[in-house]
Amino acid sequence: MKVAIIGVTGYSGIELVRILLRHPNVEISSIHSHAQKEKGITDRLPHLSRLLDLPLEPVDPKRIMEQADLVFLATPSGISKEIAQVFIKADFPVIDLSGDFRLKAKGQYEKWYKNSSAPFEYLQKAHYGLADFYTKPSSKLIANPGCYATGTLLSLAPLVQQDMIEMDSIIVDAKSGLSGAGKKLSSSTHFVSNNENMMLYKMNSHQHIPEIMQQLQTWNKTISAIQFSTSLIPVTRGIFITTYAKSKERLTQSRLWEIYQAFYQEKPFVRVQAQAVYPELRQIIGSNFCDIGVAYNEITKIITVVTVLDNLVKGAAGQAVQNLNHFAGWPEETGLDLVPIYP
Amino acid sequence: MKVAIIGVTGYSGIELVRILLRHPNVEISSIHSHAQKEKGITDRLPHLSRLLDLPLEPVDPKRIMEQADLVFLATPSGISKEIAQVFIKADFPVIDLSGDFRLKAKGQYEKWYKNSSAPFEYLQKAHYGLADFYTKPSSKLIANPGCYATGTLLSLAPLVQQDMIEMDSIIVDAKSGLSGAGKKLSSSTHFVSNNENMMLYKMNSHQHIPEIMQQLQTWNKTISAIQFSTSLIPVTRGIFITTYAKSKERLTQSRLWEIYQAFYQEKPFVRVQAQAVYPELRQIIGSNFCDIGVAYNEITKIITVVTVLDNLVKGAAGQAVQNLNHFAGWPEETGLDLVPIYP
Amino acid sequence: MKVAIIGVTGYSGIELVRILLRHPNVEISSIHSHAQKEKGITDRLPHLSRLLDLPLEPVDPKRIMEQADLVFLATPSGISKEIAQVFIKADFPVIDLSGDFRLKAKGQYEKWYKNSSAPFEYLQKAHYGLADFYTKPSSKLIANPGCYATGTLLSLAPLVQQDMIEMDSIIVDAKSGLSGAGKKLSSSTHFVSNNENMMLYKMNSHQHIPEIMQQLQTWNKTISAIQFSTSLIPVTRGIFITTYAKSKERLTQSRLWEIYQAFYQEKPFVRVQAQAVYPELRQIIGSNFCDIGVAYNEITKIITVVTVLDNLVKGAAGQAVQNLNHFAGWPEETGLDLVPIYP
Amino acid sequence: MKVAIIGVTGYSGIELVRILLRHPNVEISSIHSHAQKEKGITDRLPHLSRLLDLPLEPVDPKRIMEQADLVFLATPSGISKEIAQVFIKADFPVIDLSGDFRLKAKGQYEKWYKNSSAPFEYLQKAHYGLADFYTKPSSKLIANPGCYATGTLLSLAPLVQQDMIEMDSIIVDAKSGLSGAGKKLSSSTHFVSNNENMMLYKMNSHQHIPEIMQQLQTWNKTISAIQFSTSLIPVTRGIFITTYAKSKERLTQSRLWEIYQAFYQEKPFVRVQAQAVYPELRQIIGSNFCDIGVAYNEITKIITVVTVLDNLVKGAAGQAVQNLNHFAGWPEETGLDLVPIYP
Repeated sequence: MKVAIIGVTGYSGIELVRILLRHPNVEISSIHSHAQKEKGITDRLPHLSRLLDLPLEPVDPKRIMEQADLVFLATPSGISKEIAQVFIKADFPVIDLSGDFRLKAKGQYEKWYKNSSAPFEYLQKAHYGLADFYTKPSSKLIANPGCYATGTLLSLAPLVQQDMIEMDSIIVDAKSGLSGAGKKLSSSTHFVSNNENMMLYKMNSHQHIPEIMQQLQTWNKTISAIQFSTSLIPVTRGIFITTYAKSKERLTQSRLWEIYQAFYQEKPFVRVQAQAVYPELRQIIGSNFCDIGVAYNEITKIITVVTVLDNLVKGAAGQAVQNLNHFAGWPEETGLDLVPIYP
Repeated sequence: MKVAIIGVTGYSGIELVRILLRHPNVEISSIHSHAQKEKGITDRLPHLSRLLDLPLEPVDPKRIMEQADLVFLATPSGISKEIAQVFIKADFPVIDLSGDFRLKAKGQYEKWYKNSSAPFEYLQKAHYGLADFYTKPSSKLIANPGCYATGTLLSLAPLVQQDMIEMDSIIVDAKSGLSGAGKKLSSSTHFVSNNENMMLYKMNSHQHIPEIMQQLQTWNKTISAIQFSTSLIPVTRGIFITTYAKSKERLTQSRLWEIYQAFYQEKPFVRVQAQAVYPELRQIIGSNFCDIGVAYNEITKIITVVTVLDNLVKGAAGQAVQNLNHFAGWPEETGLDLVPIYP
Repeated sequence: MKVAIIGVTGYSGIELVRILLRHPNVEISSIHSHAQKEKGITDRLPHLSRLLDLPLEPVDPKRIMEQADLVFLATPSGISKEIAQVFIKADFPVIDLSGDFRLKAKGQYEKWYKNSSAPFEYLQKAHYGLADFYTKPSSKLIANPGCYATGTLLSLAPLVQQDMIEMDSIIVDAKSGLSGAGKKLSSSTHFVSNNENMMLYKMNSHQHIPEIMQQLQTWNKTISAIQFSTSLIPVTRGIFITTYAKSKERLTQSRLWEIYQAFYQEKPFVRVQAQAVYPELRQIIGSNFCDIGVAYNEITKIITVVTVLDNLVKGAAGQAVQNLNHFAGWPEETGLDLVPIYP
Repeated sequence: MKVAIIGVTGYSGIELVRILLRHPNVEISSIHSHAQKEKGITDRLPHLSRLLDLPLEPVDPKRIMEQADLVFLATPSGISKEIAQVFIKADFPVIDLSGDFRLKAKGQYEKWYKNSSAPFEYLQKAHYGLADFYTKPSSKLIANPGCYATGTLLSLAPLVQQDMIEMDSIIVDAKSGLSGAGKKLSSSTHFVSNNENMMLYKMNSHQHIPEIMQQLQTWNKTISAIQFSTSLIPVTRGIFITTYAKSKERLTQSRLWEIYQAFYQEKPFVRVQAQAVYPELRQIIGSNFCDIGVAYNEITKIITVVTVLDNLVKGAAGQAVQNLNHFAGWPEETGLDLVPIYP
């Protein structure tokens, strides 16, 4: 299969190249930047010298549709919805890594992204590609989930699907490395602003909240709100999420662990840790794994779920390739047998 | 006043030197290491060359009591209780930065520190020096609070003292830089183990939990347990604590903020941030400030408190000097007008 | 003495505040930003809450001259030369931290800064304030040296003044933390661009080269060129310079060390390390020290000088205050007894 | 081919696993730790869960020789020489990543490693596997070069082989991340000792100097000494080497670049950068590339070579696999088509 990548100079685009260059069934046919005019990919991405010998092109949908079988949009939210339309109209397969096609309900995108949404019919048409749960995409337009959303949903899925917790007790304390903030320059992404620092940047206002709620409510209608805050930690890659919720019935540490273990044992990219072991961030960097540890406080009945993933892989490009595999009908691990880079 | 410092080559001891060198009422009379034989302080602490011209001595309580008016123990838990005894017997003033004299109840120290405790009568005699609350030490033996304990107690004080929250709903998600782990070598303090990483290291098992509970119960008898986990983030200094609790009655964001503002306005080292502003870690590094921001989720009734402090200053040496000021009857800011090093 | 600070929200300006707040002879009378309109200093610099209670004002030279006795310009190169002129005309004391008044020779500023220079007469009037060497400023206009220049000149002074080396053999391999690059946003100051990275950014083209050459030639006319490259290392503060040169005559390790020791023994801020000891970066952070270690390779006759300083203190605000002390006739350590923050 | 790995829990051993798991011609038959008794690999190396399902075994040479075709020793210097002997005696293929078999001359190992050497005949038998130059191993005992040695030799090869420089003018200023220091605990590998720091740790005394000299003298007999210092920078992976030397004849920037370009154009893992472009560290992390940029100072005749490599790949496990490929007669890129992880 031939694929084109638009937005290849962003962090998710770069990571798509890293993964797809070693995917046995895929050839990258062309790479595109929506904004910059550049002479060649290796002027801006020197690590790809000798590995990818393609010119960096402007976006030309017609040529892309002639030469490729599918297009990845690794463009920012707000840009994808513009670029995607011609492909959608032509019923050409699109996997979009931005937030532009994730939210179904009217007004949600406007509220959280402070921008006009893609046409309502396209939002309805889009398949929300939470790849560990939906293995058969319902559409040629796949909206790849957000990084925080992926981690939060995988943390909560057993509890919410099996109605185990008091639904108004969910608290998500999420921390991310700086690549999650994208390449855009701002005083908050300056090295000096983040080194030797930790800051909470969105208190109950992150734009991944509505896609989390949308999916949680698909699983359990009784859920109405979550507490969700996001902080930056001084690392390049990785998301570390601590999720708390109160169990409805009294559990034990081992019973809770068995539930998670059973729930995820068939999912190749979710690794439930051994009992009373909590994953550390670095153990998944560079890979498509999402690692989960769980604890139960028998006095307060509070469940703690510790979840780590690489925001650029499981939280972006890796899950996008997992969705490609689903779309193409290949085994979902194809090209995703990435060994974490450790240390 | 002349003071001696035992344990001067540890991180808290080094920080005591930094602060006391500029304290107008204090002279450092001697410095001691309980373990190492070293030729001079600047062989191990080259930053002090030309600033501190004292030999590094072994511990000699008799000479210390002759030459100094008070001794700081910046020694690890387990060591302090041994060294302290001769000073306590002689009714010589001691400010201990370890955990050895913080816990009053029988068996608590043994349970959490996996070690035999100091004599029970000394535990009873010790003054728990939470310096922003207790300004008149009740004893010549001052147990300086732990770094996590200080941050957690300052986060919760208004809520617990004013009985504002459901007492079984408290969740403390605490993160610390590596200086909090001390100088001791272990695979978990190796640079490579922490750089580009975040790891949860104690789930409901940190030894600061009992001193937090002891103090919270002094403030409010109805509290019986908290959820408390601690993680390492890749910075040298600083503690970042996010605390969650459910309010008993419905509040508003502004009402919550007013309560904190009023509660702390007279305390010089606690800076409640402007409304809807959350402190970042680096804004207190090198200073004795503890900065706090609060949020209220009107849907879930969950209060979030974001608290930062420098574990070596407010969480150790700075609070110890604040306790010294209280003990000596000086204004509590004396020698603590430290401007944060920023950036 | 009352001083005003223009450019107070930049890194050097922030550091001036930190130092001057504790300077016994100085009061900060007003603070100014040349560019931004801001409500108050603590909106942008939250660490200063309760420490500095002054409004952030636009630049109003007339009021500054009425209210203050001296003005610090902590503005970027290119801005200082514009702001300074009215003060210079009025013969009002100025200490400028930018590169705008450092270069005497015609055309040099244009060549290295790619910009038109300040008026030639002002360049001539300016005193190049290498504070460890020039203790009596010759002018009310003081050009504070650059951070790399300070470190390089202190590294080479004994060798060049005493004509000890082959003058065409000097190689300076300089590394800096990111605060040296200033607050300006660019892809090269993004956290992700620098974390886990090291990059050489100016090969023989850094704008501090001409001020280094100007000063070296004052000391020794026979010097005609140096090799000078600058790299970024992923730390916030600090410059680490390794300087190499070939000795003219055969030396020994101990003879070389004695020469440095003798040369610097009277200078309070230059600490020559013990023999065969090389300073590490962190031992001077937050202080005005410049620490130096030297080695001699008896086979190749190559001298290695390892020099560290804090670019924001000795390389900017600290040296500026040292120049203020010289200007005012105070002991040069006044207000500069800063203990390094360690670790 | 089946291979066993001894020393698999060290950083180089871990990296061998990462590479060999994806090598098309290799199967890891067993993994061994020389020191620790551990239940399973994923207890200590949680990133390998689901990727490597082998028990961690003690060292049993007999079984290894029965089950495998070759053994990698990823053990520390001093350990390898003990473990290797039984394999060497049995003429069983060994690739050793330590320094134990690199030095040929009598007394060199003793001098630089402060330890008794392997038997002299084994030192003679060993093939020094500088893999970009020696593509046909002369022995079944391959001594994989050191990380600094690899970078330094690749930096200097064109200049030394073509006799272009004054041989006593070579200065190597090498910087390494902390994984280069190995997993061993010491105060100098503590997170707090390295974060926000840079320190020179071996001035003309690093144990890679003799293997560099041995190889340089193979290329050019007139070389007698180099200046070589090594510093630690606060990153996990990567070596950044700046090498200086004076050209014998006057060159130009472009002529120098052409020489390097021509010299390395056939070597798949050495990427000479575009003219006047210098590689940054992160562009090779996770890959087997060594990237080089060169500059010429036409005034001082000083050549600067900037070289980066990943100490765990090109400087250890990657080059070891390249040597395996040479040994087995496979194309040297086999299994080494690793895309750098960027950012």
